[in-house]
Amino acid sequence: MSVLKGACIIGQSGGPTSVINASAAGVIIEALSNENITKVLAAEHGIVGVLEDKLIDCSKEDIEELKLLKTTPSSAIGSCRYKLKDSDVDDTEYKRILEIFKKYDVRYFFYNGGNDSMDTCNKISKYMHKVGYECRILGIPKTIDNDLYGTDHCPGFGSAAKYIATTCAEISLDNKVYGTQSVIVFEIMGRNAGWLTASAALANLIGEGPDLIYLPEVDFSLEKLLEDIKKVSEKKSSIIVAVSEGVKDASGKFISEYGSDLSKQKDAFGHSQMGGLASYLASVIKDETGFKTRGIELSLTQRCAAHCASATDVNEAYMAGAEGVRLATLGETDKMVAFKRAEGSEYKCEIDMIPLSSVANHEKKVPLEWINSEGNGVTEELIDYCLPLIQGESTVRVENGLPRFARLKKIRIGEES
Amino acid sequence: MSVLKGACIIGQSGGPTSVINASAAGVIIEALSNENITKVLAAEHGIVGVLEDKLIDCSKEDIEELKLLKTTPSSAIGSCRYKLKDSDVDDTEYKRILEIFKKYDVRYFFYNGGNDSMDTCNKISKYMHKVGYECRILGIPKTIDNDLYGTDHCPGFGSAAKYIATTCAEISLDNKVYGTQSVIVFEIMGRNAGWLTASAALANLIGEGPDLIYLPEVDFSLEKLLEDIKKVSEKKSSIIVAVSEGVKDASGKFISEYGSDLSKQKDAFGHSQMGGLASYLASVIKDETGFKTRGIELSLTQRCAAHCASATDVNEAYMAGAEGVRLATLGETDKMVAFKRAEGSEYKCEIDMIPLSSVANHEKKVPLEWINSEGNGVTEELIDYCLPLIQGESTVRVENGLPRFARLKKIRIGEES
Repeated sequence: MSVLKGACIIGQSGGPTSVINASAAGVIIEALSNENITKVLAAEHGIVGVLEDKLIDCSKEDIEELKLLKTTPSSAIGSCRYKLKDSDVDDTEYKRILEIFKKYDVRYFFYNGGNDSMDTCNKISKYMHKVGYECRILGIPKTIDNDLYGTDHCPGFGSAAKYIATTCAEISLDNKVYGTQSVIVFEIMGRNAGWLTASAALANLIGEGPDLIYLPEVDFSLEKLLEDIKKVSEKKSSIIVAVSEGVKDASGKFISEYGSDLSKQKDAFGHSQMGGLASYLASVIKDETGFKTRGIELSLTQRCAAHCASATDVNEAYMAGAEGVRLATLGETDKMVAFKRAEGSEYKCEIDMIPLSSVANHEKKVPLEWINSEGNGVTEELIDYCLPLIQGESTVRVENGLPRFARLKKIRIGEES
Repeated sequence: MSVLKGACIIGQSGGPTSVINASAAGVIIEALSNENITKVLAAEHGIVGVLEDKLIDCSKEDIEELKLLKTTPSSAIGSCRYKLKDSDVDDTEYKRILEIFKKYDVRYFFYNGGNDSMDTCNKISKYMHKVGYECRILGIPKTIDNDLYGTDHCPGFGSAAKYIATTCAEISLDNKVYGTQSVIVFEIMGRNAGWLTASAALANLIGEGPDLIYLPEVDFSLEKLLEDIKKVSEKKSSIIVAVSEGVKDASGKFISEYGSDLSKQKDAFGHSQMGGLASYLASVIKDETGFKTRGIELSLTQRCAAHCASATDVNEAYMAGAEGVRLATLGETDKMVAFKRAEGSEYKCEIDMIPLSSVANHEKKVPLEWINSEGNGVTEELIDYCLPLIQGESTVRVENGLPRFARLKKIRIGEES
């Protein structure tokens, strides 16, 4: 394997998670000490920062602050949702990226994100190969949605799952106190893949999980929901329903749109009201059953609650970044760092490398055989799959009763500190 | 002080919190080892359990499980929202309570709750005194709303405040990642008192708190909100607004009703959509400013997130229960256990006793001098008041990656185990 010396760029892309910064810490800390990497740059707002020549010089950062990135949620370097055009159609942006790569002698590019980000990564990799610019390009996986193809699971998912299951259990206890019939509808993220919603089922291990779970993998109907609730209500008074934001009816229409059709109504001031799926379903259930209901949308909290992160997830996210750097300097390129679950009863996560072209724009959904025949719950296999991923409690440094997040200086290369 | 021997009853009432069970643990564990207390009973669903003779024999519980109550959110014995009639109007229920007290020789009654519960406690105390039944009756304070009169602060508030400030900081980081103009509207509990919403300001200590805070103590107007947001947007792109569910306009109408007026609209199935204040205000701001907005209602999570509880709060809640028992056996009655903040720069919480009649049905609001002159933020005094209450992290026992909550047997007195 040939030795390649040069600068590296790390970029964060797509929706943030509790552990995307842990992967950045893995890349940056490993790269700073790697003899083949001459300069460690972080692109502000992902590929946009490359295009705009906004690159942070990581060597100016305090190592202690870089370590704190492991427990700092959200994308500390800044993220983007930016789709590159096909280089065959318009290669203007690719030429600009090449210009920046040449300017700083960038020979390593690490892009941390989900499906769309792997597409970006793949396009840049193919372009650099085409123009003969030697550069090793790796994707580092990230998504709470857990829907990346080719990896056993994705960094970010385990922490979100731990938070969701913990919160579900706490809310379940809360909902029982009066002993009266009542229904909580939990809306959980996941537009096309139901992994996160399914993870609420982990709370069933302590007897406080959802009674009914609806994933986007299965057609949803209001009639079936109401039937299911009536059936559960014959046996217990506190009912918890976990529903994915992305559930659709048989015609493919999002159920959330049933509610938002309503939001075209205007109030006296001419304003409309946005309302989520949870509140809509809570209204429907209340109307039809008379039960007390409450819709709870976990919203952004599920992707940034670093205070309840999984230590397993944090460590794996860091490892994905650090191993990515190590393997790139050993010659790997044009791939995504992936996780492979070792065979055997004991959980062990190994690093795998998947060609970017096979990852980009694919989505991994919950296997239908892990959903029960009624389409309103999950099987033991799904629990067995998720459980190892939520193990261990992330130790967030606390100062004054509040989390001590990383404070980066973000000095751009070329600027004085 | 005369020695009084007999059984005790502990009851939980009103909305649950992260630490109401810590107070129950304090009462039960102290009472079980107190020589003057012959039997420790827990009333299922508060006063309703007394009326229905549903009393749990706490001596049948495992001590380790009782200790786990310290970190188990919600009301483990069951709560109620039950208002006793005035005994002068109808004393049927009081006679029944007396009958139950006599049946089990109950000489101590501890009632753990908020304003309404202190009213219940006060009425029972006055009745028992009137009929000459010797019984020591104490209220144990509990409310995330922090609105009980006569106590420096209330058990439950510190943990809710810690969770709110932590979550606010995490969401603030999340909202910054794209660097685009966007507004988060956080809806926080507090119908009449703004303590909880104000506590979000603690996150400003780490630079991630709300830019604007609206409490029910100050008249709210949409015009002022929009003006304030425009002003903040001149300086920064990520804007966080913390708003109390109870904000009202100058005429006294809840702003949340502006939104719910809309919810009378019906969809194609004849269903209406419930929508909260956060989503309504997010809609209004989006309409008027064009900024990206998102409404987040913290909902029940803020009162049951024991995984993010304040150790100070947990310990004080336990102390309120245990000291209540100790002081009752020493002769105290007809009072609520309260907290007094010791003079001096170092925080120290001391036990105080307040007559029930002065507590019942009073509400302690945020002092107007702790709200800024613009009516959209809080002062340093408020931060200084709140900060000691969120110190320390509650150590929740974790098994298999999930919280290990207390498992009570709940064997009723007279029943076999």
